[in-house]
Amino acid sequence: MDDRHAILFEPVTIGPKTLPNRFYQVPHASGFGSGKPRTQAAFRAVKAEGGWGGVCVEYAPVSRDSDEVPAIAADLWDARDARALALTADAIHEHGALAGLELFHGGGLSINGQSRAVRLAPSQLASQVQFASLAKEMTAGDIARVQREWAEAAKRARDAGFDIIYVYGAHGYLVTQFLSPVTNRRTDGYGGSVAGRGRFWLETLEAVRTAVGGDCAVATRVAVHGAAGLPGIDVDEMLELVAMADDLVDLWDVNVGSWPEDSGTSRYYPEGSQRPWTHRVREATRKPVVAVGRYSSPDLMAEVIRSGAVDLIGAARQAIADPFLPRKIAEGRLDEIRECTGSNVCILREEAFRHVGCVQNATAGEEYRRGWHPEVFSLAANTKQPVLVVGAGPAGMECAVVLGKRGFSAVHLVEAETQIGGRLRWVRQLPTLGDWGRITDWRAVQLGKLAGVEVITGRRLCAADVLGYGADLVVIATGSAWRGDGVQPGLTGRMAGADPGLAHVLTPEQVAAGKRPPGRRVVVYDTDGYYVAPGVAELLAGEGFSVSVVTTFAVLSPVSDETLEGEMLRAHAHRQGIAVQRGITLTAIDAGSVHGHDEHDGPWSADCDGIVLVTQQASDDALYTELTGDPAALARAGIRAVYRIGDAVAPRMISEAIFDGHRLAREIDRPDPDQPAPYRREHPDLAP
Amino acid sequence: MDDRHAILFEPVTIGPKTLPNRFYQVPHASGFGSGKPRTQAAFRAVKAEGGWGGVCVEYAPVSRDSDEVPAIAADLWDARDARALALTADAIHEHGALAGLELFHGGGLSINGQSRAVRLAPSQLASQVQFASLAKEMTAGDIARVQREWAEAAKRARDAGFDIIYVYGAHGYLVTQFLSPVTNRRTDGYGGSVAGRGRFWLETLEAVRTAVGGDCAVATRVAVHGAAGLPGIDVDEMLELVAMADDLVDLWDVNVGSWPEDSGTSRYYPEGSQRPWTHRVREATRKPVVAVGRYSSPDLMAEVIRSGAVDLIGAARQAIADPFLPRKIAEGRLDEIRECTGSNVCILREEAFRHVGCVQNATAGEEYRRGWHPEVFSLAANTKQPVLVVGAGPAGMECAVVLGKRGFSAVHLVEAETQIGGRLRWVRQLPTLGDWGRITDWRAVQLGKLAGVEVITGRRLCAADVLGYGADLVVIATGSAWRGDGVQPGLTGRMAGADPGLAHVLTPEQVAAGKRPPGRRVVVYDTDGYYVAPGVAELLAGEGFSVSVVTTFAVLSPVSDETLEGEMLRAHAHRQGIAVQRGITLTAIDAGSVHGHDEHDGPWSADCDGIVLVTQQASDDALYTELTGDPAALARAGIRAVYRIGDAVAPRMISEAIFDGHRLAREIDRPDPDQPAPYRREHPDLAP
Repeated sequence: MDDRHAILFEPVTIGPKTLPNRFYQVPHASGFGSGKPRTQAAFRAVKAEGGWGGVCVEYAPVSRDSDEVPAIAADLWDARDARALALTADAIHEHGALAGLELFHGGGLSINGQSRAVRLAPSQLASQVQFASLAKEMTAGDIARVQREWAEAAKRARDAGFDIIYVYGAHGYLVTQFLSPVTNRRTDGYGGSVAGRGRFWLETLEAVRTAVGGDCAVATRVAVHGAAGLPGIDVDEMLELVAMADDLVDLWDVNVGSWPEDSGTSRYYPEGSQRPWTHRVREATRKPVVAVGRYSSPDLMAEVIRSGAVDLIGAARQAIADPFLPRKIAEGRLDEIRECTGSNVCILREEAFRHVGCVQNATAGEEYRRGWHPEVFSLAANTKQPVLVVGAGPAGMECAVVLGKRGFSAVHLVEAETQIGGRLRWVRQLPTLGDWGRITDWRAVQLGKLAGVEVITGRRLCAADVLGYGADLVVIATGSAWRGDGVQPGLTGRMAGADPGLAHVLTPEQVAAGKRPPGRRVVVYDTDGYYVAPGVAELLAGEGFSVSVVTTFAVLSPVSDETLEGEMLRAHAHRQGIAVQRGITLTAIDAGSVHGHDEHDGPWSADCDGIVLVTQQASDDALYTELTGDPAALARAGIRAVYRIGDAVAPRMISEAIFDGHRLAREIDRPDPDQPAPYRREHPDLAP
Repeated sequence: MDDRHAILFEPVTIGPKTLPNRFYQVPHASGFGSGKPRTQAAFRAVKAEGGWGGVCVEYAPVSRDSDEVPAIAADLWDARDARALALTADAIHEHGALAGLELFHGGGLSINGQSRAVRLAPSQLASQVQFASLAKEMTAGDIARVQREWAEAAKRARDAGFDIIYVYGAHGYLVTQFLSPVTNRRTDGYGGSVAGRGRFWLETLEAVRTAVGGDCAVATRVAVHGAAGLPGIDVDEMLELVAMADDLVDLWDVNVGSWPEDSGTSRYYPEGSQRPWTHRVREATRKPVVAVGRYSSPDLMAEVIRSGAVDLIGAARQAIADPFLPRKIAEGRLDEIRECTGSNVCILREEAFRHVGCVQNATAGEEYRRGWHPEVFSLAANTKQPVLVVGAGPAGMECAVVLGKRGFSAVHLVEAETQIGGRLRWVRQLPTLGDWGRITDWRAVQLGKLAGVEVITGRRLCAADVLGYGADLVVIATGSAWRGDGVQPGLTGRMAGADPGLAHVLTPEQVAAGKRPPGRRVVVYDTDGYYVAPGVAELLAGEGFSVSVVTTFAVLSPVSDETLEGEMLRAHAHRQGIAVQRGITLTAIDAGSVHGHDEHDGPWSADCDGIVLVTQQASDDALYTELTGDPAALARAGIRAVYRIGDAVAPRMISEAIFDGHRLAREIDRPDPDQPAPYRREHPDLAP
């Protein structure tokens, strides 16, 4: 280990417990809750194994009037829930880490899709999240009941084996709703002054401390205003509150109140962007403090600790991307660290009520389901078979890495271009998307280390080349390309005039390769909805083009709302002078104008000098089709199987292409590797 | 029974099975799938008990590459799933009905949130539903595998006890994707001509028939074009296909392809609107046919059967609203039928990944969870206590009905207005919302029949009146009202100039009561997002006002997308000349104009003669607060408890207010009726 990093491995005492080091996986959603207890346990255990000294489970509702269905939370309503969650506490303990449980009440942000209970809140104010539905202003009886339920849940959590029990108030949930003067308009003793607004929280902390204080560390998670302002508490007010509560708290877990800022993406926030706000808590407390910052650099982590502002390095996304980050630092294997790209694919999945997933770490969430471990790879049964992987995009790179780790002795990863990376070669060049390049960079380092894997660039293979290559197994990872024909969802024929052979019609790849329209007015037409259209628009706007994004959607880049980037992306585009025309379907392109209809089928046109079609992608499966179309030739060549992965199968998000490449390599010695092996599910108890 | 309805009770033979009558609950989502097997069984069993001769479970994916997570489907992937679903088949059989299972593959519309499998489709075309993600064009191997899995799932379904096995192709799923020339662009033997596009379906039918044909009836569900056109198959082409497949099919389940049309709401579609398309299938088949039509009238049902076009009355929504509809017809209790309002609250819940729920039938989905039966009410332990229910809106009406059914001998439902119905009095007068009045109408009939319940209208009770009323129990159901102060999500202070005492500032209730702005140009400002703003806008536009809806949302009435009404609602408003300004936040009102900012914080203004504020509601809880604020007075008056239900607790959707009133009445003899009793959940199997 580098001496500069030794400080990260000091133990830290929190109340009656001691963390073995300063690496702390803060509570974050997994999609497993208490309903998929084995999946949860395996997902958290691998982090403890990887060296995180504290590992927390996600939000655990204390009350039935805070159920998060259809999201899956760690409901802790009775002893049966506690038995389910005990599997996770036990699994974390097996690796010497402390286990934390984030007891929680959503208040006015509760979903209550299962309970159909009324939402509770300090005041009856409409939410910006829950439409057509308001909360009940909590009565004194409601307040006392929720506090009682919190204490009861704390006892259940202790009995289930958890070491750290939270009173979770951040991210706009019930505690923050009381603390913030915006959401707390009460005129009784639970509102008004700082002390009044803090009363619910202090009483709850006291109730939990009374219930379990000698047995467990009591943590609290609170939000301060960051750059974005609301929601959260003004930092100076928060310092008053921290001082008031300090005797009741063993660990302060502090974040900024705006979730898009707290989980800021690399497009808009550098690592540690929250420090100016969260680090001020030190001014008011003598207790240990943890804060997050999407840190992946050990040097920066050590610097943060040395600053004295915090005692623990909190991580959610980086701990998903690399559960073994602490051990890699301890062992000086810094180049092995899988750095979080900050693209928020994990959050996109959560927002869509899916379980956790990660672009960098295909094993995230698959520890129990598929038995995958991020650092352990079984020796394949067929390691002596030479493998040719055609295409070094995300899927091909990942597949070759995993094949190498599984002990294959002759894997050739052959790329037509002069650089590996596939579409990432140009995507990482788009404005604000540079950190997505970490996907390529980490795999490039791995590929360089694996003795059994050779990377060959600048060589485009035709079918005859593949047949003559000498491989037993062939994996086609030739990716996909944007169609230039204007075919789009709901419009399956070629758009009139859509021909990228013309000067005024462009595909995103052509833009990336330097093609520019023959004039300054450009339309970027988007029916895709994610990052490519705004990326191309920003690139061209930055070069001085007058850019309009024309889109079928009601907003620019709706997918970016699910990565928490939507609002910033739209503001960013607006500041760059990019116009947005929404609800428009284009059906024809002329030199000088584009034509279509609006959402009410009224005619719509715009003058422009060129159009970039971000409409639809198509798999580049020509090589695969040619090879598999001639089984006799394959047999003659000694090729036992031709597989296909990534966008060559179907154009998808980069995370899914990587998952696909990873899966094939994990299962390449099973009977039918093209077909995913059945994964383990958790089933309902059918016992009478 | 009325003789005219006897035809509805004739048995119908489908292949090797016989349905006891013509009432058929078609497959529809419940949110219980195979993951909540007891909840599913109880939900379906009550329909069989209520007289539906055929009762089907929802879509049951045959393949792991069609998983519907986060929606909960009846996955039938292994024997364990089959054991879970067998509980439902058994429960349906106990009441003499046949049990159907809708085997299904979503193809390119699969979600695959759990499996992360690539989507399969006949052709690689972008979806209008799944962003940034395309499907794999199925290979011949994929086709054969899915057909094999379908046949294997059919055997599992048979072994689980199901009588009717589906090859489900409607609603744009895999079979329809093959049948439709829009989504099937294949050039091999599975595309092109009608026969080519029909081949996948015919082969699958044959595989299922071979697997289980002698043991089970084989049903297929297909979609034809309706008024909306796509998705679906042209009716004339479908007749060709039906003729080709007829020998393989025991029951035709036909619908129109557009879901918003197939499950059309009462706002835009009359009962039986699908007949011109679905009923043409009779021209090509000798087998029984079922089709839906949101029928609630027994006369219309009998007429449809007598027309000869269909053999069975299919129902999804009406069977949710009244599981006992067939028995009520059989027993001549026609005024007892709880008619579906066609408001699609059930679908709104499904679209949001919640379990089933119904505005008319609060017990839907609660049969196992809370032990509620739609027609059976336990005698309360405290029936002799006089109960005063204050307010005859949705919650108050429902509560009084249930109290009456539970045997209370002296329930007084006292309403301040001259008519019962609460907000429904004016909501049902808004354009297109007339059928929502069924909520009031059914309860009015029930209230008239219950000897223990007296309805008193035109009497506004103050606290002193309540104290002197002579009730032991008081239920406050005083509802809510629209705030006229402009307070809205994210803006908690009064909006400048927002004073409904002024001539140019109006609340929705004021509009309903006849107030009109002092000029022709009206802004309807919407931060609510559901039906009130478009309803008021249409009302005023119909009177000749020039109406603009100004809204913070990106589209007019986003909630209407979840009831499948969004597109039609926007087209309807557009045709009426209603302008829509999106992404605008208003902060000030003058006589003659309104002011605010756009989504990029740029200033925004509009001239107008008046504004209707559809911003936020507030509970009318003054009476409750006054009464509960003086416990001594309550004690002196002999009042044992004061409860509160519906919008007086928190303004919510009408369905939730009714649920709240129902729940209180079901639990009013429990220890703490204000707090919902814990409901039963299904838990994961923790056995090692």
